Amino acid sequence: MPNDIATRELRQPVDIAEYLFRRLHQVGIRSVHGVPGDYNLVALDYLPKCGLKWVGNCNELNAGYAADGYARVKGISALVTTFGVGELSALNAIAGAYSEFVPIVHIVGQPHTRSQKDGMLLHHTLGNGDFNVFARMSSGISCAMGRLNETHEVATLIDNAIRECWIRSRPVYITLPTDMIVQKIEGDRLNDPIDLTLPPNDPEKEDYVVDVVLRYLHAAQRPVILVDACAIRHRVLDEVQDLMEASRLPTFVAPMGKGAVDETHKCYGGVYAGTGSYPEVREQVESSDLILSIGAIKSDFNTTGFTYRIGQLNTIDFHSNYVRVRYSEYPDINMKGVLRKVIQQLGSVNAQPPPPLTNTVPNEEKTSGNQAITHAWLWPTIGQWLKANDIVITETGTSNFGIWETRFPPNVTAISQVLWGSIGYSLGACQGAALAAKEHGRRTVLFIGDGSLQLTVQELSTMIRNKLNPIIFVICNEGYTIERYIHGWDAAYNDIQPWDIKSLPVVFGAKDQYKGYRVQTRDEVTKLCASKEFADSSLLQVRGWFLSTYEMSFAADKRTSWWSSICPVTMPRRP
Amino acid sequence: MPNDIATRELRQPVDIAEYLFRRLHQVGIRSVHGVPGDYNLVALDYLPKCGLKWVGNCNELNAGYAADGYARVKGISALVTTFGVGELSALNAIAGAYSEFVPIVHIVGQPHTRSQKDGMLLHHTLGNGDFNVFARMSSGISCAMGRLNETHEVATLIDNAIRECWIRSRPVYITLPTDMIVQKIEGDRLNDPIDLTLPPNDPEKEDYVVDVVLRYLHAAQRPVILVDACAIRHRVLDEVQDLMEASRLPTFVAPMGKGAVDETHKCYGGVYAGTGSYPEVREQVESSDLILSIGAIKSDFNTTGFTYRIGQLNTIDFHSNYVRVRYSEYPDINMKGVLRKVIQQLGSVNAQPPPPLTNTVPNEEKTSGNQAITHAWLWPTIGQWLKANDIVITETGTSNFGIWETRFPPNVTAISQVLWGSIGYSLGACQGAALAAKEHGRRTVLFIGDGSLQLTVQELSTMIRNKLNPIIFVICNEGYTIERYIHGWDAAYNDIQPWDIKSLPVVFGAKDQYKGYRVQTRDEVTKLCASKEFADSSLLQVRGWFLSTYEMSFAADKRTSWWSSICPVTMPRRP
Repeated sequence: MPNDIATRELRQPVDIAEYLFRRLHQVGIRSVHGVPGDYNLVALDYLPKCGLKWVGNCNELNAGYAADGYARVKGISALVTTFGVGELSALNAIAGAYSEFVPIVHIVGQPHTRSQKDGMLLHHTLGNGDFNVFARMSSGISCAMGRLNETHEVATLIDNAIRECWIRSRPVYITLPTDMIVQKIEGDRLNDPIDLTLPPNDPEKEDYVVDVVLRYLHAAQRPVILVDACAIRHRVLDEVQDLMEASRLPTFVAPMGKGAVDETHKCYGGVYAGTGSYPEVREQVESSDLILSIGAIKSDFNTTGFTYRIGQLNTIDFHSNYVRVRYSEYPDINMKGVLRKVIQQLGSVNAQPPPPLTNTVPNEEKTSGNQAITHAWLWPTIGQWLKANDIVITETGTSNFGIWETRFPPNVTAISQVLWGSIGYSLGACQGAALAAKEHGRRTVLFIGDGSLQLTVQELSTMIRNKLNPIIFVICNEGYTIERYIHGWDAAYNDIQPWDIKSLPVVFGAKDQYKGYRVQTRDEVTKLCASKEFADSSLLQVRGWFLSTYEMSFAADKRTSWWSSICPVTMPRRP
Repeated sequence: MPNDIATRELRQPVDIAEYLFRRLHQVGIRSVHGVPGDYNLVALDYLPKCGLKWVGNCNELNAGYAADGYARVKGISALVTTFGVGELSALNAIAGAYSEFVPIVHIVGQPHTRSQKDGMLLHHTLGNGDFNVFARMSSGISCAMGRLNETHEVATLIDNAIRECWIRSRPVYITLPTDMIVQKIEGDRLNDPIDLTLPPNDPEKEDYVVDVVLRYLHAAQRPVILVDACAIRHRVLDEVQDLMEASRLPTFVAPMGKGAVDETHKCYGGVYAGTGSYPEVREQVESSDLILSIGAIKSDFNTTGFTYRIGQLNTIDFHSNYVRVRYSEYPDINMKGVLRKVIQQLGSVNAQPPPPLTNTVPNEEKTSGNQAITHAWLWPTIGQWLKANDIVITETGTSNFGIWETRFPPNVTAISQVLWGSIGYSLGACQGAALAAKEHGRRTVLFIGDGSLQLTVQELSTMIRNKLNPIIFVICNEGYTIERYIHGWDAAYNDIQPWDIKSLPVVFGAKDQYKGYRVQTRDEVTKLCASKEFADSSLLQVRGWFLSTYEMSFAADKRTSWWSSICPVTMPRRP
């Protein structure tokens, strides 16, 4: 046995792999995503005894997406890959999690530390003796690195990485060489959970900021609340809800903030996304003299191409690490404490009613008698079918924009990648989210296009293998439709190979647990949505919805015009 | 139009995208792999006019693998991805190409240069205004970077990148911002092809080295030739063949050198891989007093766990950038010129006959009466069925080791990833190789396991879409068998979801062009191999071969014992 002398001095000796996995369990992780590989196999043996289930994805990119989806439901997740070939395959998913503030503990099985020191010509290397090149590649997309090479620092590195992952809500990178897996360290420390509490704000500074915020708020005539992604990721949804309740201010969400606010509440006013908003929403937000902007990410897709028309002079920005009141910045202060005190000391504010909600099928669609399933018809209709506590995932494509038109029941969790926007993400994320949702009896619903599906299709197999039961809508419009709107409406590069989508689960080994439907008309959709069997989440369900490209009305006028503002070349209009 | 004044001064103005693609065509590329994305769409419009076909893969990792396979047949290839999400998905494939010396021009569509300078919060970014982070990630796995941001340097950067890609036989990274696609540059330069010739060796130095080599060669009693991967990648196969012919020395290949030598030649002696070799091969190589080692990559998998027993005192190493005679190093000299002169000035050498070839089914297998398809039986049998000029691809798994036992007909190209070893690679590589082979009427044959297939399965769809016709053998042994040999024979993490493999092509849209077979006995294999229809490469063919795990005899004794020498933990033996 290695490390014999040191082991004798330990009060509760524990293998490093066990220490790591017990820490993951303590922060709420119950399933670990990833793909086995020769440098991580021995570590995987430790999972069951630590109360962790191995998912076993089909490939690492999909596993990374799944870990992202799992973290968005459970709060944090873990991904295990192998050196080089495995970890590099997952980088796109990790970068997406970094971009969108999703906490994933990425654990990479590495060669023996001696082989690394000797620069041996091992498989899964570049053949140049450099064992740090892959860690360097991950360093720009990780908020902490824990390289477990020396037993005396392992526990500190692990605890620190997990804490940073949670607090900063971003991926961390941990390397676990094969020889370190079985090394003993002090397990005593496991009796104290990792401190995941936010560092408290300086009280005097916090009071000062609260005072400034309240002063502007009390002076405002038409204040509104605008909630965005970082309110979800930095865990201030209770504060947001309480602020809306206490202030009765009209409350809007940015596209990335969908699901942050109870959309059945009388103060909820809809989605604000610049020129992509309904006119009534735009009017109220843009004429407001004080916008309490909570957790904003003002990216192109989230603001309909930077068409926000709200001035900084009318804005207070709340963030996880600073607050900005008009142009005054208050760094190193977390919004959570500030918001809580603002709620406590709120007093009286001028609360206007929100605009009437317009998330309904437009009249011209209702009377058209058209049986084609259009986006204008689809998304408001889906809102009627969704249930409280659903998890709704939308792919980077027409679904990600269409969902703006869907009014959610209470406690819906929305998952999408509006900023990172990697196509194929949603199917992997659906696997992770459905796994996290399963224990809580929540339903998982995915909307994905036939183009995006092709990137990550094998994760249907992982869902079947893990007995998950999401409801998957595949919107079939024969290609990369969102890209057709950008450029090349008729270009062959936006076409895809036609697949028999409804047969995919059977090929991937699904038996009785699978039901497939193909619907092509509105009446079929309506009938399907009304059926009890369809809504039952105890079955894995995959549907192919076939929308003819020419019958799609989504976004032709309202939601794509802004592309021209960031696309440098002429954008052909849909013929 | 941008750049008007400059354009007027150009003799043959050409758009940058057209310049780039014409250069790709000039070096022999006819098809471009990749996935469309919003930052590369406009560039793709230029492909047809430059004589290039767009493949349109299902995802970027697979596209990267395909580009790798295409390059190994055509000499060089191109991959187009989009910023962030696209390029990062391909990194594992690019790293593999870097590791294994495969020349891929990786072209990444980027946002407008102005947006980059302004640090805009665009989709596909980390949200931090850093537009260089992804280029930095690629820099460690690219032998040249060409960032096309200024028109005046574009042509130089493109020409340099393509030249470096070819000469150093490794990937290069080119960024193409959306606004640069349509900028005009001087096209006059296109009339002169890029100089792809090797820099000549210093003649005096070359003569000196040749003299040293010949001196040792003439003194040697039992010299042998040992050919490895870099002989293929650095294009000295003509020199290798001529040296074998002229010298009549017994000639062996390392596993990564399979296909480098005509295996029907009377001087060919088989595969040398340390303790993984046949005893007769090992005896002759290890007792040799001079090994002419051409293009060696002495990695773990290529040397059966570093079990080469050939001393440096008996070795001359020939490489693309140096020659080493015993311990004397001659840097900055290319083996090509040296080998040519050695052949010219060869004189008389002591040529022993090679050992008798043993690539036949072992006697105990022949007489066993066992109908189970074992590796010991399979690989020599396949050798009888292969044809001259076949392209044979083997997956990182049991196939990659099994193929050592297959004797090739002349001019077979072998494709595998013995050093990088990324599972799933071979299916993507098969798509690229089959596309490259199609024009030349060559047959492409793939051996892949049911575990590896799951990582990249959707590329079957790309093969169907592009009307390719590889013959694909799926070896079904219900999991990651190569990993079971390493650790966890019965562990659930080495299991996979069972799929209906023979139905996959139909689900992916194959119609008449597809034939599927399932064979489970030796008699069925023999019958299949004898059928003319099966050998016909005008059909896309996918076969499921079902080998029971318990009936597999491959490598249980000979080929896995070396794992323990690099695996730091106890390796359980197969029960």
